[in-house]
Amino acid sequence: MGVMRIGHINIRVLDMDAALHHYENVLGLLRADRDGDGNVYLRGWDEWDKYSVILSPSDRAGMNHIAYKVESDDDLDVFRRRIEAYGVEVEECPAGRLPDCGRSLRFHLPSGHLMYLYAQKTYVGKAVSTTNPEPWPDGLKGAGVHWLDHALLMCELDPESGVNKVEESTAFMQDVLDFKLTEQVLVGPDGDIKAATWLARTSTPHDIAFVGGPVKGLHHCAFFLDEWSDVLKAADVMAKNKVKIDVTPQRHGITRGATIYFFDPSGNRNETFAGLGYLAQPDMPVITWTEDELGRGIFYHTGELNEAFTTVYTEGA
Amino acid sequence: MGVMRIGHINIRVLDMDAALHHYENVLGLLRADRDGDGNVYLRGWDEWDKYSVILSPSDRAGMNHIAYKVESDDDLDVFRRRIEAYGVEVEECPAGRLPDCGRSLRFHLPSGHLMYLYAQKTYVGKAVSTTNPEPWPDGLKGAGVHWLDHALLMCELDPESGVNKVEESTAFMQDVLDFKLTEQVLVGPDGDIKAATWLARTSTPHDIAFVGGPVKGLHHCAFFLDEWSDVLKAADVMAKNKVKIDVTPQRHGITRGATIYFFDPSGNRNETFAGLGYLAQPDMPVITWTEDELGRGIFYHTGELNEAFTTVYTEGA
Amino acid sequence: MGVMRIGHINIRVLDMDAALHHYENVLGLLRADRDGDGNVYLRGWDEWDKYSVILSPSDRAGMNHIAYKVESDDDLDVFRRRIEAYGVEVEECPAGRLPDCGRSLRFHLPSGHLMYLYAQKTYVGKAVSTTNPEPWPDGLKGAGVHWLDHALLMCELDPESGVNKVEESTAFMQDVLDFKLTEQVLVGPDGDIKAATWLARTSTPHDIAFVGGPVKGLHHCAFFLDEWSDVLKAADVMAKNKVKIDVTPQRHGITRGATIYFFDPSGNRNETFAGLGYLAQPDMPVITWTEDELGRGIFYHTGELNEAFTTVYTEGA
Amino acid sequence: MGVMRIGHINIRVLDMDAALHHYENVLGLLRADRDGDGNVYLRGWDEWDKYSVILSPSDRAGMNHIAYKVESDDDLDVFRRRIEAYGVEVEECPAGRLPDCGRSLRFHLPSGHLMYLYAQKTYVGKAVSTTNPEPWPDGLKGAGVHWLDHALLMCELDPESGVNKVEESTAFMQDVLDFKLTEQVLVGPDGDIKAATWLARTSTPHDIAFVGGPVKGLHHCAFFLDEWSDVLKAADVMAKNKVKIDVTPQRHGITRGATIYFFDPSGNRNETFAGLGYLAQPDMPVITWTEDELGRGIFYHTGELNEAFTTVYTEGA
Repeated sequence: MGVMRIGHINIRVLDMDAALHHYENVLGLLRADRDGDGNVYLRGWDEWDKYSVILSPSDRAGMNHIAYKVESDDDLDVFRRRIEAYGVEVEECPAGRLPDCGRSLRFHLPSGHLMYLYAQKTYVGKAVSTTNPEPWPDGLKGAGVHWLDHALLMCELDPESGVNKVEESTAFMQDVLDFKLTEQVLVGPDGDIKAATWLARTSTPHDIAFVGGPVKGLHHCAFFLDEWSDVLKAADVMAKNKVKIDVTPQRHGITRGATIYFFDPSGNRNETFAGLGYLAQPDMPVITWTEDELGRGIFYHTGELNEAFTTVYTEGA
Repeated sequence: MGVMRIGHINIRVLDMDAALHHYENVLGLLRADRDGDGNVYLRGWDEWDKYSVILSPSDRAGMNHIAYKVESDDDLDVFRRRIEAYGVEVEECPAGRLPDCGRSLRFHLPSGHLMYLYAQKTYVGKAVSTTNPEPWPDGLKGAGVHWLDHALLMCELDPESGVNKVEESTAFMQDVLDFKLTEQVLVGPDGDIKAATWLARTSTPHDIAFVGGPVKGLHHCAFFLDEWSDVLKAADVMAKNKVKIDVTPQRHGITRGATIYFFDPSGNRNETFAGLGYLAQPDMPVITWTEDELGRGIFYHTGELNEAFTTVYTEGA
Repeated sequence: MGVMRIGHINIRVLDMDAALHHYENVLGLLRADRDGDGNVYLRGWDEWDKYSVILSPSDRAGMNHIAYKVESDDDLDVFRRRIEAYGVEVEECPAGRLPDCGRSLRFHLPSGHLMYLYAQKTYVGKAVSTTNPEPWPDGLKGAGVHWLDHALLMCELDPESGVNKVEESTAFMQDVLDFKLTEQVLVGPDGDIKAATWLARTSTPHDIAFVGGPVKGLHHCAFFLDEWSDVLKAADVMAKNKVKIDVTPQRHGITRGATIYFFDPSGNRNETFAGLGYLAQPDMPVITWTEDELGRGIFYHTGELNEAFTTVYTEGA
Repeated sequence: MGVMRIGHINIRVLDMDAALHHYENVLGLLRADRDGDGNVYLRGWDEWDKYSVILSPSDRAGMNHIAYKVESDDDLDVFRRRIEAYGVEVEECPAGRLPDCGRSLRFHLPSGHLMYLYAQKTYVGKAVSTTNPEPWPDGLKGAGVHWLDHALLMCELDPESGVNKVEESTAFMQDVLDFKLTEQVLVGPDGDIKAATWLARTSTPHDIAFVGGPVKGLHHCAFFLDEWSDVLKAADVMAKNKVKIDVTPQRHGITRGATIYFFDPSGNRNETFAGLGYLAQPDMPVITWTEDELGRGIFYHTGELNEAFTTVYTEGA
């Protein structure tokens, strides 16, 4: 019973051809489908459900929705009741509303981001089979990312007016969807303002994260790589393709992951996130970052937030 | 609700000083305690509970017991009922029977291995703190392993007489303890004999595994490393310390992990296991290895089982 | 003035199609040419001369000759005089005798191996250009080796009869061709028998090496990889292609290089050798390995020579 | 005959205690000596001569001199004649003028940087011995750099007034000291202004480099690491020690090396340079970078020179 993992993200792109070059040839996602509205569906080679990324043509970059997969169909009934009991409006959508998925729950996080839960998506299998599989498939393109790993959503935070959507969305994920809080940034004169949080359902450090900002937005979505050596290859591939890199290979203090931040051609920030980081567990104590060490938390090596980190993002819905 | 992870393993060693040199200076475990009977308690730097390895002085190498940690104390009542209902004798032990642990359940797997479940163990914290932690602590020794990752238990398998304790223990872990079967080796003329299995509760490829052999035994216990570069360092450290290496750096086909197999001074096989491998999930299809590709499954690069793999092991209880 | 580096090796193969699959798709060499006699010419992507490997169809595996490139045409006259003065017969061959090369010197090492020196070979350029080059080219196959790095030649060694062709060939390389002895294995009751030597002209630990054995032979030829992470990829590629691996990823004590030993389909041993090792310099003291630590010298992790190391080789001429 | 490699660099530091913490505990150099004037002598663990870095107390950061080691004492006579014949004033200094060194030649490059040549320095041996050495020593601190690899000297460049000390110093190194030009940056409307050059005597991509700037200065001195995984460790160590990092892990297009740029406490820029890059050879064609791709040449991943690269440096003499 419960949420298993991030299922997919629906990203808006301004130029589909440029976007496909980026997500297919640079990140190395595999194309699964294209629908009549021009939406393109992709997945990582190590994923077995049909897609984890939907690219939607638009004139504004950003995220339409984010979806998580739950363990069984019955879980949807449980979560529907819980969400409603929490005072959040939830709509049950019939199978097919999310393409290739069974029935789903549609609701907005307190931060305003649109989220779906679903229990079933068309199975297609990993690019390596289930019988005597090779450790990686031949013919991978670009960075060869394994799977959609997590997203960081920017939530409105204005301590002066008492608005903290990071805190509200975090509480919702913990109380309603049983996510485990793994790390948090506490700021302010009393060190009690949750400025950013990381939460997990898998044993990885995060399946979703929230960070405070002026408005609701998409900070980035991240794709998994095995390890640091894959990060160098990924950065080389980005250079070959003239991808705009935001932050070159570096370690996060938070999650310990090795990262590259970069932008898709529409300006949506992507990340390649490498390594397990640590084994997240329900009984692992929450890790807290204080305001003076926030820089090290985000970018461990420099200890400095580049200006873009908090000012460049795309729309959250 | 449920089993979270491997909690600890109790290993018998013939020479405690030699064992401590090995587990502390080669593997890099931290010593937590030593009791009046001469048992020594150790943990990895990235673990927060007091210990994950108990070394017990003995004149026979092998494993005394293996223990898994469950999420809450109430879970023990649930599992007690389930285990009994499965027809397996289970004893509830008072707090302290497992040192520094709360009450525990004591039972034997169908393969005969002694297992405990417990919900509470003395918390001591990671070697990096919970406030603005560094990604790794200063002063690590040897390979600097992060945590006890899993164990592979050898189970009696004799197809001619119809004995298959791999299958029985696997079924128990699935049916009673809600483990997910991630990979299996099927052999025999009809390809229906479970000769080895890998099962998980975390999102990693395995928290326990079973392999067929002539008798019940301990094949190995494994400790986590981040990645392939750590494997080279670990192998170098073993060479500096004249550790008997069974299999030099290589990739497993099964789990995709990068491995070194080696022996502690008493002859218990250890492994350093590097990398996440893949994200194990309840809905991930089971991966099957056939008899003709079994070699690739175990040792992907050579495709050949070295003779020691199936003939060298220590006692299972 | 002087020898610059290994120029090429001429290897005999039993099945050219199988050999080409191996050298092109597994090692990742680029095909440069095929002549009327069925010889195929290949090079690594990081080499600028036309070829560094000649595969010659034959019914006996082994090496026909090995060739080194000198800095200028005049050097050939100097070396001709030196070689003759050393009492070794030398033939000056006209341009074209070595295909695509200028005039060359042809002689046998004291160990009997046939060696050429040449100063000029057709220039074709690296797969990355000389203007704003990328760090690696797109479309690489297999392990993507950079260049032919060195060869280890087996020389007759029979201390009882006083035969030591390792010592004689080493002296020739030092005295006549100005090679620097970087490492040596000294064995025997008095520790004065040169059983193996490594010599360099570049700043790498070796451009040629000699090891004692029952007869003259080719132990292996090696191809360069950047680093340890490339070794894992190379081993994975070999597994995918069912290459017979002799020694899985391991470090050499001698040279410190990370290695895989494996066989081409004809039984010629290859190596992928990764990393600089150390900066070899004329004033670096010679490193000596004693008989009791010879195992660590060859295979640092296990400290044990596998049986194949000294018993499996192909013909040296 | 000829220059072998960079021998040492003499760097001025403002606070010796802070400098020693940096060079010993962060970089991992070994202290060799301290003289009566407070100069401290250090070397990398993989060097055999007594020192490669002299730290001199001063109230101005920068470089006092740079020194290269030649192969034999006689070479000094040859180079003295050549340098004089080139019209450059040269002084022969007696043994001991460079501490622990034999006689030396003292002269200024056309760019004004003070350079010494010497043939002999006190031998102390690598931290691993010359008999059955381990691949790396126990007890290394910090990043554990192997050796001083190269320096990049800033030379006055003012195309409008026709001043190009990059070109002049490059020509001197080529014509007088037999360095090989491996890479160059050509800028200006006709693409004929040498704005930066890389030159080698070893088989590595560079033993010295020059870059144009407003005045003579020291851009950085670099220390060798094996590979990319060592770069992550080095960056982590810098973060632990709050070292000011200029450029986080990234690849150079020029030389292909993996780099971190950072500052010592006095503001002298250091680099950890990882990997061989490629095998530099006398017959390797010169690699040219054009003005429009200069950014990729320096920082391959971003393709952008950070502002500090050309504006922050310390004095060159």
